[in-house]
Amino acid sequence: MGSPVHRVSLGDTWSKQVHPDIQSERHMQSFDVEQLTKILDGGAQNTALRRKVESIIHSDPVFSLKDNYFMTQNEHYEAALKKKFHIQMLAQRLGWSEDSRELGYAYRSLSGDLALGVHNIFLKSIRSLGSEEQIAKWAPLCNKFQIIGTYAQTELGHGTYLQGLETEATYDAATQEFVVHSPTTTAIKWWPGGLGWSATHALVQAQLICSGARQGMHAFIVPIRSLQDHSALPGEDCGTHSSGHGAGWGALAQTHCLSLVHQVLPDGTYIKLGTAKANYLTMVVTRVDILLGEVIPMLEKACVIAIRYSVVRRQFRIRPRQGSSWVQHSCDRLNVSGMASDPEAKILDYQTQQQKLLPQLATAYAFHFQASSLLEFFHRSYSSILDKDFSLLPELHALSAGAKAMVTDFCAQGAELCRRACGGHGYSKLSGLPSLVTRVAASCTYEGENTVLYLQTARFLVKIYLQAQESPGSTSQRSLPQSVAYLTAPDQTRCPAQRAADFLHPEHYTMAWAHVATRLIKDSAHHLQTLMKSGADWHEAWNQTTVIHLQAAKAHCYYVTVKTFTEALEKLESEPAIQQVLKRLCDLYALHGILTNTGDFLYDGFLSGAQIDVARTAYLDLLILIRKDAILLTDAFDFTDQCLNSALGCYDGNVYERLFHWAQKAPTNTQVVE
Amino acid sequence: MGSPVHRVSLGDTWSKQVHPDIQSERHMQSFDVEQLTKILDGGAQNTALRRKVESIIHSDPVFSLKDNYFMTQNEHYEAALKKKFHIQMLAQRLGWSEDSRELGYAYRSLSGDLALGVHNIFLKSIRSLGSEEQIAKWAPLCNKFQIIGTYAQTELGHGTYLQGLETEATYDAATQEFVVHSPTTTAIKWWPGGLGWSATHALVQAQLICSGARQGMHAFIVPIRSLQDHSALPGEDCGTHSSGHGAGWGALAQTHCLSLVHQVLPDGTYIKLGTAKANYLTMVVTRVDILLGEVIPMLEKACVIAIRYSVVRRQFRIRPRQGSSWVQHSCDRLNVSGMASDPEAKILDYQTQQQKLLPQLATAYAFHFQASSLLEFFHRSYSSILDKDFSLLPELHALSAGAKAMVTDFCAQGAELCRRACGGHGYSKLSGLPSLVTRVAASCTYEGENTVLYLQTARFLVKIYLQAQESPGSTSQRSLPQSVAYLTAPDQTRCPAQRAADFLHPEHYTMAWAHVATRLIKDSAHHLQTLMKSGADWHEAWNQTTVIHLQAAKAHCYYVTVKTFTEALEKLESEPAIQQVLKRLCDLYALHGILTNTGDFLYDGFLSGAQIDVARTAYLDLLILIRKDAILLTDAFDFTDQCLNSALGCYDGNVYERLFHWAQKAPTNTQVVE
Repeated sequence: MGSPVHRVSLGDTWSKQVHPDIQSERHMQSFDVEQLTKILDGGAQNTALRRKVESIIHSDPVFSLKDNYFMTQNEHYEAALKKKFHIQMLAQRLGWSEDSRELGYAYRSLSGDLALGVHNIFLKSIRSLGSEEQIAKWAPLCNKFQIIGTYAQTELGHGTYLQGLETEATYDAATQEFVVHSPTTTAIKWWPGGLGWSATHALVQAQLICSGARQGMHAFIVPIRSLQDHSALPGEDCGTHSSGHGAGWGALAQTHCLSLVHQVLPDGTYIKLGTAKANYLTMVVTRVDILLGEVIPMLEKACVIAIRYSVVRRQFRIRPRQGSSWVQHSCDRLNVSGMASDPEAKILDYQTQQQKLLPQLATAYAFHFQASSLLEFFHRSYSSILDKDFSLLPELHALSAGAKAMVTDFCAQGAELCRRACGGHGYSKLSGLPSLVTRVAASCTYEGENTVLYLQTARFLVKIYLQAQESPGSTSQRSLPQSVAYLTAPDQTRCPAQRAADFLHPEHYTMAWAHVATRLIKDSAHHLQTLMKSGADWHEAWNQTTVIHLQAAKAHCYYVTVKTFTEALEKLESEPAIQQVLKRLCDLYALHGILTNTGDFLYDGFLSGAQIDVARTAYLDLLILIRKDAILLTDAFDFTDQCLNSALGCYDGNVYERLFHWAQKAPTNTQVVE
Repeated sequence: MGSPVHRVSLGDTWSKQVHPDIQSERHMQSFDVEQLTKILDGGAQNTALRRKVESIIHSDPVFSLKDNYFMTQNEHYEAALKKKFHIQMLAQRLGWSEDSRELGYAYRSLSGDLALGVHNIFLKSIRSLGSEEQIAKWAPLCNKFQIIGTYAQTELGHGTYLQGLETEATYDAATQEFVVHSPTTTAIKWWPGGLGWSATHALVQAQLICSGARQGMHAFIVPIRSLQDHSALPGEDCGTHSSGHGAGWGALAQTHCLSLVHQVLPDGTYIKLGTAKANYLTMVVTRVDILLGEVIPMLEKACVIAIRYSVVRRQFRIRPRQGSSWVQHSCDRLNVSGMASDPEAKILDYQTQQQKLLPQLATAYAFHFQASSLLEFFHRSYSSILDKDFSLLPELHALSAGAKAMVTDFCAQGAELCRRACGGHGYSKLSGLPSLVTRVAASCTYEGENTVLYLQTARFLVKIYLQAQESPGSTSQRSLPQSVAYLTAPDQTRCPAQRAADFLHPEHYTMAWAHVATRLIKDSAHHLQTLMKSGADWHEAWNQTTVIHLQAAKAHCYYVTVKTFTEALEKLESEPAIQQVLKRLCDLYALHGILTNTGDFLYDGFLSGAQIDVARTAYLDLLILIRKDAILLTDAFDFTDQCLNSALGCYDGNVYERLFHWAQKAPTNTQVVE
């Protein structure tokens, strides 16, 4: 029952046996869990490699997450810093290169609990923005931590809109120095993580001014601390004492302007060398990496914790002994007599609990396949781009922006739902859920704010739609990017599904999503055109229709995830049992989306009210089927207990013993009170 | 501009003048803000009293919230404890009684940042469960803090389901003692706040066993610490060292069984004296109090912070200088040249930002009127109950359970939306938003878990519906409780609204919500009956239809809030300007609900797709109108800067200066790094 890596080895008696309520869930295995794990890992070799890395990580006390929930902010930062250095040293010793699978697995098993994430962004930015010479100089220094970098784009008053930044870098030809300067309060650099405490160099985004002319935003490497004694170098403000907060900048002699696509000659002449398109790919792959490596695993973990807890936690009886009245449930705090004799029900047996958790599980699986497919597409596009073919770039941009927005939105919502599904214990740090919820919520804002990203996808969709309209039947229509090909495919005006079983046909629900996305994109484009015809300029018209564009982009993104999930299923023909259980999740995912957006499907009569009822029946029936496999489906993610770090979510189901024993370690519980 | 109470008096130059971007929002006042504040307070006298209390609180350094964001957990607990004692002493000195308005205002201005909240629950429980003699003994001890109480219902494995609790209190007639005992790990008492550190007595819910017979759940006052030296009294486990966590119990000689409705004779004979119905009211009024005093203000504050910040923060230009292409927004991290000359737009001028924030503002107002009306209804019911008329109790229960579930759900969602609408700074503690988000999320679970509460409302609705069906036209139908009278009112099959202006008629949208709620309640009752006819027993049938009942209960609750809001507006005829601006909020609230649930209205053709489009037009037009008054509408809540405790949300709009100066005080920014 489960490989040893799942097991907790606290040495306590209670941890040696699996809780019977979770044990019973694993009795009947309708599919091979181990095989599903291998599929999720992308092959048995990967699973083996991942487990090997995990056992290395978990056997090293420096990497233990055990005391995480009891640390102060400063202690936590120090521990994360220690882990960061330790993993880098370990990687060098074991020969794990920066982009290796091994290091990816190591990060996964550490739950991203490392400091100096921005050190990596610093390095990546140098790689994408610097000249070969510059990369050769800085990259080795970074890798050996001889310098520690941070990324300083955001300013106190300015976020993702690069052109709005106020910090200036003025080239002084006389001294051949760049003078970096934040002229106002709103220009103060803000949020460069680890800057105050650790960083020696910052990659600063600033307006380049050469010979009096503004040349736009450029990136500068600015030394901020002495490499001898780590003391702060002279700066304009007290900013160097503010970790993760503000910093001002002074004149700095050793500032370097990164120069892949331009050059500043010693006399101040500015020369533009090329375009920035290729560098843009760094940002795209970072987004996809974050989804696969951080965001989706957070939803997966939240599902594991909440679902495992939901088969151990029992509350209420489905059939109370004395019958039931409105006042009975109301008397929770009062003296009600009588003790019914049948056991309380596992809360996962309540329809409302299934309705909360199982769609989240389905979503986690859907996103796994979606992000994997996006990564493949990225690599295909990258190859084309190396061959100077940029034709896939707009689609790649729209897909990755939309995926980032949708996945982080849904994962944040889903993790919070999982937390609330755990009742009071879900709010205890020891459940592991509060830290997951906090971290995944932030992902909706960093690496591109979600509304901004959805609207970028919307812009692409409108453009494609209008292009297709302009030249119907022409080649441009036949060559629509794959993910939007449905826009010109033959459409149905009514969904042919009638019985519940019909709604489990992927072609029906995929078609339904394509129909709705097409209608909404068309609608948003028409609204835009109508406003422009009535005299508004493009930008005003766009701003007055963004609510509608958002809706269209969201429907498109949902369509893409449904479509990708069904395509992933088609490849699993050799594993019929796994294909069957995953198909149920795919069905649930598609139907849950329809049932939470019924208006979009009823709007033009594509579905009738009666069909919605039938779809709901199909959906409720699926909940019962998936509930039976729920624990196995969470086991298949193969998270170790150490990585989950949750008193509620461990593999053995010993929830209450673990809660009780872990709570004893809390500082509030170990200090003596006078 | 603004009463002095709004102003920050940090003595910094920048805090002496209001930011021009927020100043300009207050130039044109379409209504009298001060007058609206008085209406929200329920009269000018209350406003004056509230401000007087606030100035007392804010002038006392013990109550300062300034350093809150920089404290460790333990420091925070100590500060909250200090505030609790201090406010109690102050109240005694100034003659503020326990249920006085003054004390309510004091709590409001302290943002609930007090420890020992359960001390009050302890006292309230004694008041509602104890005999007169017991109340006379314990209440004064509580009021003078001669004892400190905690409420110990929840057990490690058991939550709100009182009958499932395992802790036992066995009466030993020989020694005339109650022996309180937690027989298993899952029976360990969990979550009694402040227990480990501060409490001397616990109100323990346990199974009473008299002469071998189980008499059901009863409440016991159990002494847990010496009143001489505060040392822990002998208990079964090390539980007394766990603040807010677990505790076991031993045999305790001085344990008292609270006995309003029963009596245990010295020989162990158990006598039942009455019913628990009246006591149940304590729970109801606690729920309503929490909504008005804690939960709704949290959404209001989140709105104030996010909306004020949204008129100071500028990002992007609505019209970029160089035209716009997909790649432009994508190049956030890249070197894009050119600096446009027109200023960036206030983010509240973006339609998507309005769409995020203004419905939250409308919701906050809707909930204010809803909760106020509920409190009035409670007092009416209470009077009847004192006259032994219990007929209003079921409706009161359904209304308060539904309101608690809906308000906490929407406030949690809304506060999180406000946080995300503030970009990166929304995640900084200094914004005030993370603490609001965390606290309001917990309210979805405490004082009755929301799904459980919604289902209690649903149960009432089904019962009422079936009763009305059984005897159509009879008196029972005419005497339907007021909040569900719509169930038998004449219904329309189609909404008559055609033009955008039609959708701003309260009778149209109230009718629309009544129609949908009626249909869903009918539908859920029929599903239940169908299942029972096909052989399922009531409980199984109920569990298999809870998802449908939930939907019905939610629609009913939405209807109630819309209806209550429109009724509140009718009373404002003497204030036409305020009536107009509030009516817009009411319209927005009703239409936002329709547009996020279009499927429910399209389902049976009550609205057509074309009507939905018209409703959306009306909605988008409202956003523009309300946006103009947005700052004034947030000012009207009249929160002091001290109470908001937000660098983003202060009255003067000096966001960036405050962020920068506050950040300097962070411990991470004041420690010197080696």
